[in-house]
Amino acid sequence: MADGDDDVPLILTWDDASSGLLEEDENGAGNHDVVNNVTIPASGASDPRAQNSLQQSWEMNFQEAAIYLQEGENNDKFFTHPRSAHALSAYLFAHSHLFYVVELLTAVLLMLLSLSEAPAVPFLRLDVYVHATLELLALVMVAFELCMKLRWLGFHTFIRHKRTMVKTSVLFIQFIEAIVVLVRQTSHLRVTRALRPIFLVDCRYCGAVRRNLRQIFQSLPPFIDILLLLLFFMVIFAILGFCLFSANTADHYFSTLENSIVSLFVLLTTANFPDVMMPAYSKNRWSCIFFIVYLSIELYFIMNLLLAVVFDTFNGVEKMKFKSLLLHKRSAIEHAFQLLVSRQRPDGVSLKQFDGLMRFYHPRMTPRDRFLTFKALNHSGAPMLSLQDFYKFYEVIGLKWKARRSGEHWFDDLPRTALLIFKGINLLVKSKAFQYAMYLVVAVNGIWILVETNMLNDGISWTRVVPWSYIIFLTIYGIEVLLKITGLGPITYFSSGWNLFDFSVTVFAFLGLIALAFDMEPFYFIVVLRPLQLLRLFKIKQRYRNVLDTMFELFPRMASLGLTLIIFYYSFAIVGMEFFADVIYPNCCDNSTVAASYRQINVTTGNRTELQEGYYYLNNFNNILSSFVTLFELTVVNNWYITMEGVTSQTTHWSRLYFMTFYIVTMVVMTIIVAFILDAFVFRMNYSRKNREPLDDPEDEKGIVFETEVSQTEALQTLDFYKHTLGVTNLTSLQDMCVALERSGQTSLVFLGRRSRTKSDLSMKMYEEEIQEWYEEYSRTNLQTDGTFHRELDSPDAGATNSIN
Amino acid sequence: MADGDDDVPLILTWDDASSGLLEEDENGAGNHDVVNNVTIPASGASDPRAQNSLQQSWEMNFQEAAIYLQEGENNDKFFTHPRSAHALSAYLFAHSHLFYVVELLTAVLLMLLSLSEAPAVPFLRLDVYVHATLELLALVMVAFELCMKLRWLGFHTFIRHKRTMVKTSVLFIQFIEAIVVLVRQTSHLRVTRALRPIFLVDCRYCGAVRRNLRQIFQSLPPFIDILLLLLFFMVIFAILGFCLFSANTADHYFSTLENSIVSLFVLLTTANFPDVMMPAYSKNRWSCIFFIVYLSIELYFIMNLLLAVVFDTFNGVEKMKFKSLLLHKRSAIEHAFQLLVSRQRPDGVSLKQFDGLMRFYHPRMTPRDRFLTFKALNHSGAPMLSLQDFYKFYEVIGLKWKARRSGEHWFDDLPRTALLIFKGINLLVKSKAFQYAMYLVVAVNGIWILVETNMLNDGISWTRVVPWSYIIFLTIYGIEVLLKITGLGPITYFSSGWNLFDFSVTVFAFLGLIALAFDMEPFYFIVVLRPLQLLRLFKIKQRYRNVLDTMFELFPRMASLGLTLIIFYYSFAIVGMEFFADVIYPNCCDNSTVAASYRQINVTTGNRTELQEGYYYLNNFNNILSSFVTLFELTVVNNWYITMEGVTSQTTHWSRLYFMTFYIVTMVVMTIIVAFILDAFVFRMNYSRKNREPLDDPEDEKGIVFETEVSQTEALQTLDFYKHTLGVTNLTSLQDMCVALERSGQTSLVFLGRRSRTKSDLSMKMYEEEIQEWYEEYSRTNLQTDGTFHRELDSPDAGATNSIN
Repeated sequence: MADGDDDVPLILTWDDASSGLLEEDENGAGNHDVVNNVTIPASGASDPRAQNSLQQSWEMNFQEAAIYLQEGENNDKFFTHPRSAHALSAYLFAHSHLFYVVELLTAVLLMLLSLSEAPAVPFLRLDVYVHATLELLALVMVAFELCMKLRWLGFHTFIRHKRTMVKTSVLFIQFIEAIVVLVRQTSHLRVTRALRPIFLVDCRYCGAVRRNLRQIFQSLPPFIDILLLLLFFMVIFAILGFCLFSANTADHYFSTLENSIVSLFVLLTTANFPDVMMPAYSKNRWSCIFFIVYLSIELYFIMNLLLAVVFDTFNGVEKMKFKSLLLHKRSAIEHAFQLLVSRQRPDGVSLKQFDGLMRFYHPRMTPRDRFLTFKALNHSGAPMLSLQDFYKFYEVIGLKWKARRSGEHWFDDLPRTALLIFKGINLLVKSKAFQYAMYLVVAVNGIWILVETNMLNDGISWTRVVPWSYIIFLTIYGIEVLLKITGLGPITYFSSGWNLFDFSVTVFAFLGLIALAFDMEPFYFIVVLRPLQLLRLFKIKQRYRNVLDTMFELFPRMASLGLTLIIFYYSFAIVGMEFFADVIYPNCCDNSTVAASYRQINVTTGNRTELQEGYYYLNNFNNILSSFVTLFELTVVNNWYITMEGVTSQTTHWSRLYFMTFYIVTMVVMTIIVAFILDAFVFRMNYSRKNREPLDDPEDEKGIVFETEVSQTEALQTLDFYKHTLGVTNLTSLQDMCVALERSGQTSLVFLGRRSRTKSDLSMKMYEEEIQEWYEEYSRTNLQTDGTFHRELDSPDAGATNSIN
Repeated sequence: MADGDDDVPLILTWDDASSGLLEEDENGAGNHDVVNNVTIPASGASDPRAQNSLQQSWEMNFQEAAIYLQEGENNDKFFTHPRSAHALSAYLFAHSHLFYVVELLTAVLLMLLSLSEAPAVPFLRLDVYVHATLELLALVMVAFELCMKLRWLGFHTFIRHKRTMVKTSVLFIQFIEAIVVLVRQTSHLRVTRALRPIFLVDCRYCGAVRRNLRQIFQSLPPFIDILLLLLFFMVIFAILGFCLFSANTADHYFSTLENSIVSLFVLLTTANFPDVMMPAYSKNRWSCIFFIVYLSIELYFIMNLLLAVVFDTFNGVEKMKFKSLLLHKRSAIEHAFQLLVSRQRPDGVSLKQFDGLMRFYHPRMTPRDRFLTFKALNHSGAPMLSLQDFYKFYEVIGLKWKARRSGEHWFDDLPRTALLIFKGINLLVKSKAFQYAMYLVVAVNGIWILVETNMLNDGISWTRVVPWSYIIFLTIYGIEVLLKITGLGPITYFSSGWNLFDFSVTVFAFLGLIALAFDMEPFYFIVVLRPLQLLRLFKIKQRYRNVLDTMFELFPRMASLGLTLIIFYYSFAIVGMEFFADVIYPNCCDNSTVAASYRQINVTTGNRTELQEGYYYLNNFNNILSSFVTLFELTVVNNWYITMEGVTSQTTHWSRLYFMTFYIVTMVVMTIIVAFILDAFVFRMNYSRKNREPLDDPEDEKGIVFETEVSQTEALQTLDFYKHTLGVTNLTSLQDMCVALERSGQTSLVFLGRRSRTKSDLSMKMYEEEIQEWYEEYSRTNLQTDGTFHRELDSPDAGATNSIN
């Protein structure tokens, strides 16, 4: 491997040859110039200065290749690729985790400020100068981040980048407003605060939210079309309803055309049904036909059509997104490959170069893992990675490596007596009988809890007493956990999600019990945890495992959708607070049709007097937390018109626009959520049908597994190579490997690389055939624009000699 | 063609050769015996008696082949195939349209009786002896129908046929009960009336309802699984809610475990939100978390999962249904083909046999159409139809034949001046400018109506006055219709659905105007019709056309789903009436938590007195119509708990079971409806994407088109053949064809057969590749069980000679 010492990077020829491939990528100007200045040493020369500068140029290449691969992974477009040395340093600064965290914290701080700004949550109220100063600080921070971005992107790219431009202008407005607030020492009508989530959305860590927003915007055009159809029918029926029912003076729902439209809009959400029908129905029983027809058309047909259209768009978009991501990654890999190959061997990446790359791409990876990853990529067994090998980069990069255990069980090496005992426990724990016995215990526990709770009709008396059944069942669960851990070994035990679940529930229950013994009010704790054990019953049936697995798989995506919803909530909450703060209070709306819901008064009915407590005055916009709860109630839709009418009666009837807009926005997001769940579930079902394998077989639970065999000589060679050629000092991982090899007494050792299966892996398998077509199409378009590049890959010598001479 | 005179049916050999093919079909015993008794004439013999008996045996074969094809079309299983001569006559009787109509009317009568039985709709009340006698009569009718069925099926098949057996037992019970009612002269608790819809479901014309029910039952197992998950979480949260909130005395929602479960069940439907949260929320603001988490898990996750699971099942079931239908049809065609071929030529069906078949299959088809259908089937141009040709039977059988018009426009034959005028109108009508001008008129009309309605805030004053704008716009529409009819010709004009729509709206509007002139209160008429014109605006955009087309396509299926829902409603309405009739009245429920909704009383609030009108006493089960409205309200779900709690407070708390069961049943049906709309829409979208053709291009609007060219000699030969060989007397259709041919002066005339495109056609195109696989698989299984049959088809002579000797 010593002959690789004076390999010269192919990069010197790269500018011409790959100009077609990198169409939109006018980079390479800066750092490649550096490389071009290097005096190219003749093959075999050993001038130390030239060596050193060659080494430097390689380092630059490694770094840029790592950046390309990062861009591929993060789906950053290549036109934001750093173009010069100082752009590179800005890029590196703006892509460190510290920077990301600061970015996130600033954005969160800005959003949290609304807790303390008037109208503030009572116990978090801050003086104006305090929160305005905090805001200014945060905005300065954002401005600094933007400057770094400007430095990295350059002015032209910065201007072209829409999201960044929007952020800049919002920042500008916020700045001015914050200063105005600081000067006037009082808040003015600051609706622009509703734009604050933009800072959060732009954070690196909120990429999922950005994707969701993009998806929502992509689904909008068809959605709006159907929405118009919906509103059109609504207006037609409103006119009809007005003509039919306005003669009835008891029917205030249709007294004017506006009321009529509002009533039917609310009816669309079913929130005022059947009340809206009742006055007309009590006059003429046949009037129910109007409402039945309206609901059948609007609610049961067009609303479902809405879902269908969004689902359909969603379906297509998901696949296209996967495709573009896949091709983007492929392109990133090709870029990186070009930077890693040498002039002498332009068709392969050696371990030395790969190791150099990984030092930038994954600084914390041990030399052993770098070596094993290289081996895993290297399918052909040649000393170099071809481009074909390198295409698998993203598949192997996340693997966690571990030597394959020789024995089947953890206790195989123990003395005979202990082995027999553990073997027995192992067999017991794995037996069907044990499993079903545990299910039985859980079921009995469930029934017990129900009966017990039902018998205690007075909920207060037992908060201090632990029921003895609780202790018994907990003991059984504890024994089960211990048996399983000893029987299966801790590693096998904790590698199953279900066992982890059992374990944590049991441990928490014990902690609750201990806390109770020390009288620490762990009451809720126990109550919440006890029924959770029952969830285990759902392991029995295949479908439940599927559903629960899907649930866990969907969780990250659901969380990001939830965050997206919260961002919308935030904006609406700010607008609501600015306009409707403190307009709602007990007995506020006596002139409206929903007065009863806001009343808090003693009422005489016949000869009885009772407190009529309407409670709806609690659904207000008095601070951001209340606003969030109110908005959640509006999302659930039932009785939302009571809040709307209450606010409207205290302000103007234009307030309805706010509520209706909110309804439509949440409808969009909710429809997307439904479409997403549908899509994910149907995808999973189709997947397991297509591959004729249940998704939860033991093989699958382990996720993706790669195997690599390392022989003793190879290990020693590598150790030597790392020590002498690369001059790496911290080689414990490699040394450990060699020791393990020696100790095992075998000539080779198999290492397993594992990672959990992602949606992308499933998609890869699902669209297998299409993916080949996409690749072909992709390389065809590349070939057309850039014939030379690919030809060079095929006949490397020609390219290499050409460029050297 | 005269040589076909003494063809002998292949049927005599059929019993042995095809026994494998007809595994489950032990038929042929009866009517084939008849054939076997025929003395087989030697080829070429002309003994009139033998001829006659040969003719008879052919007729039997035609009839049985027609029955097979009917069974294939109706998806009747072959084990109900008639097996003997008197079974045949019973079969024919039970498959006449008269029988179907009587069957339907009897079932409808039985269901309508509940309008008049106590508790009856006031103006339809009948004496007990009247409605009981009517019921008895209807039941006797049903019994008669069942006897006919027994005669046709035979006792063994009758017993095996589950649906018929259920029907028989229900009939038996109903009979006894009707007699008891007649004897006692008063109705007892007749919950069994809820089973009456079984008679309707069993009707031939309600096949779609049966299919829906089957689909619902097929979707049930996965549905129930997820439902259990839903209920499980509900119970867990109920226990938790009880523990958390039962200490609050103001919170009656969680006062006992039962209340807690009921509250959360209702919360699942969102009907009591946010009220259920309010008492807890007013005590501690953080308690909202409990409700938010509950709704997020149950409503936004598991409920959507429910839809996903049903959608997934639905998806698979739809495809499987299509497959089994297709293969059943294929099998029916093969059966029929065997009955139509002769011993002499066992590989083909001649026109004579085909004509014989069609006389039974489609008695009202003209000889010309029978001939053209034969030609359309006959792809190869050979004088006989091969089995391959015959497989297309169901595709061509619904075609409507028409000679292709020579000219492009209807006015091409008119004198020159008229031609120019009409040509001008034609160009005008087809121009984009005219279309957009009309859209503009419609839009202006729409805005006009809105403004006008808004200005008349008092709805009563204008019922007698026709606004002048109405007349103006109507005139414009009238002119447009006239121009279009003259410009395009009536046939082209009316062949477009949209034009038909325009035409009918305009004509009805005119009728309304005339009626108004004669003072006939056509007020509603006009109000309803005016905005309908606005629907035309949706023609502008492709997506709307797609949506509206899908809407029309879905309509029959939606109607059948609606009917299915009504059948469930009926059963629930009967049960509701039996148990809850007259328990609800104004001020009935003062002890319940929903008393306010049932109150009709003067209330003093502070110093004002007002009528508190709760109206909910109108939602009762006092007669079947009220029950239907109440059930619809329960379906819409909002505020349904008010009805439930009202009834519960007047009866026992077991009544809640009724309402909860109803909710779950409607949830199933509604989920299926949503899944169906989703499926249909996504299918359509995929279809148009796959075939790269918009679904509404002019070609497509015409549906399926077959072309057949008939030359003059062929026409005359056919006429001669029908006149002499077949001895058909009514040959006007064929003579007309010959005349048309002569008059056109051409040697041949092209006939176009058209029918509208069905879902089955779309599926055929959609699953093209899979269909080939299915066919191969199907013939492979057939070949295995029945090698001889297919071999005989390949070498017909061997089989034919064998069997004759």
